[in-house]
Amino acid sequence: MSNLVKVGITHGDSNGIGYEVLLKAFSDKRMTELLTPIIYGSSKVASYHRKVLNSRSVPFNMIDSCHEAKEGRVNFINAVQQDVRVEIGKPNETSGEAAYVALEVAVEDLNKLDIDVLVTLPINKDSIQGENFSFTGHTDYLENRTSNDNRRCKALMILASESLRIALVTTHLPLSEVSPTITKDLIIEKIRTLNDSLKRDFFIDNPRIAVLGLNPHAGENGLLGTEEEEIIQPAIEHCLDRNIICSGPYSADGFFGSNRYKEFDAVLAMYHDQGLIPFKTISMDSGVNFTAGLPIVRTSPAHGTAYDIAGKNQASEESFRQALYMAVDVYRNRVAFDEASKNPLRKAFFERGSDDEKLDLTGDD
Amino acid sequence: MSNLVKVGITHGDSNGIGYEVLLKAFSDKRMTELLTPIIYGSSKVASYHRKVLNSRSVPFNMIDSCHEAKEGRVNFINAVQQDVRVEIGKPNETSGEAAYVALEVAVEDLNKLDIDVLVTLPINKDSIQGENFSFTGHTDYLENRTSNDNRRCKALMILASESLRIALVTTHLPLSEVSPTITKDLIIEKIRTLNDSLKRDFFIDNPRIAVLGLNPHAGENGLLGTEEEEIIQPAIEHCLDRNIICSGPYSADGFFGSNRYKEFDAVLAMYHDQGLIPFKTISMDSGVNFTAGLPIVRTSPAHGTAYDIAGKNQASEESFRQALYMAVDVYRNRVAFDEASKNPLRKAFFERGSDDEKLDLTGDD
Repeated sequence: MSNLVKVGITHGDSNGIGYEVLLKAFSDKRMTELLTPIIYGSSKVASYHRKVLNSRSVPFNMIDSCHEAKEGRVNFINAVQQDVRVEIGKPNETSGEAAYVALEVAVEDLNKLDIDVLVTLPINKDSIQGENFSFTGHTDYLENRTSNDNRRCKALMILASESLRIALVTTHLPLSEVSPTITKDLIIEKIRTLNDSLKRDFFIDNPRIAVLGLNPHAGENGLLGTEEEEIIQPAIEHCLDRNIICSGPYSADGFFGSNRYKEFDAVLAMYHDQGLIPFKTISMDSGVNFTAGLPIVRTSPAHGTAYDIAGKNQASEESFRQALYMAVDVYRNRVAFDEASKNPLRKAFFERGSDDEKLDLTGDD
Repeated sequence: MSNLVKVGITHGDSNGIGYEVLLKAFSDKRMTELLTPIIYGSSKVASYHRKVLNSRSVPFNMIDSCHEAKEGRVNFINAVQQDVRVEIGKPNETSGEAAYVALEVAVEDLNKLDIDVLVTLPINKDSIQGENFSFTGHTDYLENRTSNDNRRCKALMILASESLRIALVTTHLPLSEVSPTITKDLIIEKIRTLNDSLKRDFFIDNPRIAVLGLNPHAGENGLLGTEEEEIIQPAIEHCLDRNIICSGPYSADGFFGSNRYKEFDAVLAMYHDQGLIPFKTISMDSGVNFTAGLPIVRTSPAHGTAYDIAGKNQASEESFRQALYMAVDVYRNRVAFDEASKNPLRKAFFERGSDDEKLDLTGDD
């Protein structure tokens, strides 16, 4: 058995910058010393992009199934049999369909544990819609496809970089639906998933979580909205009572402006732009999107299809590279965490005299 | 008559960092060479803060009315007669009342043109509420107090720094009310006010305006919300037809992450946090809040009362100093603009032969 983590990579929307960042990242041969990539894509589309970018430096190892993947090679499964019309820089139906088909094949392998982790390149959320795909994005789709009857998974979108981790209570929702969607239970669920993920996926012992408000100035004591007092604050108190270190709700604008986010291991934002605007402003090029709360490990670069610069050789592969690293790290962290917590020591009291502190280890960690 | 601009300054909430930034800014004696400050405050509260900060370097020139203000001095009107209970770091009723009273006196002088511009220190939007004050902030209040029967003013909140200007379509509204409040007419009004202000207040000849979307990914073609297609896009087209250089709607997260904002003279955001989060993240310390669309000039620092650091000698006076500079600049720009456009040249055609371009000056500027 191999020691390198097997990383499935889906090509995403074939008219965006996906193939460009893919080719750029693997033109560095050291990448295959760190992990074993298995790309789920279309060989014709890959050739097309190779020509456009004038890039011949990445020799693919064409394989039919992930079982044939070789270490040290950039393995490529031609998952998309049908013809794909490449129109660089704009969405079309065949590119949406191609993105879906590759994703479907990869997730099957992932569910069978034939690959260890999944890194997805960006799709167009509009053109991918079809008979088989009616989700607002990868996160929803994976929540559905990796759940089974026994356990309904609750995915949590986390944006992560060196300096900042931001998780979202709601993701791809119209702004008008954000307030009606937010409930105390939902926020508790997200704080718990985030706390669990920080421990198991990021190996942080006692994670500190900041929770943002929903309204301007976090509602200014009810003057600018009541969700903070009625929903968010009670959810925070509920979690504090269960030994999760969380605080807030913080006014989102000042929180980032004054660098307070640096005092926390993660920030929970209420909606997409509230989390994504500061994240991209602070960590655009190196940001990674990680989906917590699922049985599988999935990351993706934080950027989108970026049609405006597609085919122009201007895209940075940095975010994709970081997504590969993070997928491998999280996979290894999970293995280590599960190993470490498999056979816990029996609970014990220490009491060595009245001058010493009493150490009570019975509390839930 | 004096050549220096007379700057009225209201003390804001007396338990916040207002007096601290005031004392710090005017401890630099060069400030009174640039402008003539007239502070509307409470002399007792000022003494209190002076002691707390151990600051004796700013000698106030105590006056009874702004007519007595002297150049080269830090003039101080004791606008608040009643006792104010100072409790540094938290709001109370007397501090809210004191903030209101000082503001009221200053705005009276402003409306009589006895002072040239107004710079307001931050209030607590909650504690200032009372019989006479039922507004969500300075902007609303000033819109009401500086309008007259003939002309209802339409204020526009602009956050400005060296590198960025962001205006807001809606300001201090609960998030759930943002979508119902946004209409095509409202956006057109804001684009126009912004365009006028960039020309007259900031002296930019042909301002370029970026308009943000409301929903995640600017609605992703209607998948994540319809306001972009039904409201924002038509408003932009309406303005383009009237020769205002504006474009969008842009997806807010990528727009700031990719530095696209640098290509524009100003950005119009749909709601408070969408504009304030990136603004404070990019320009926290030097940001200024400017209220466009009013007959008078008003600026304020971009920060709030900052109770958490009040009385600790940690506040930066930079934003307040920039607010003073900007008030003076905008006042001078308006004078120059109005002077320049008072007696326009008569419209004329030039046609000097078929090889030359035809220059048509009849179009509205």
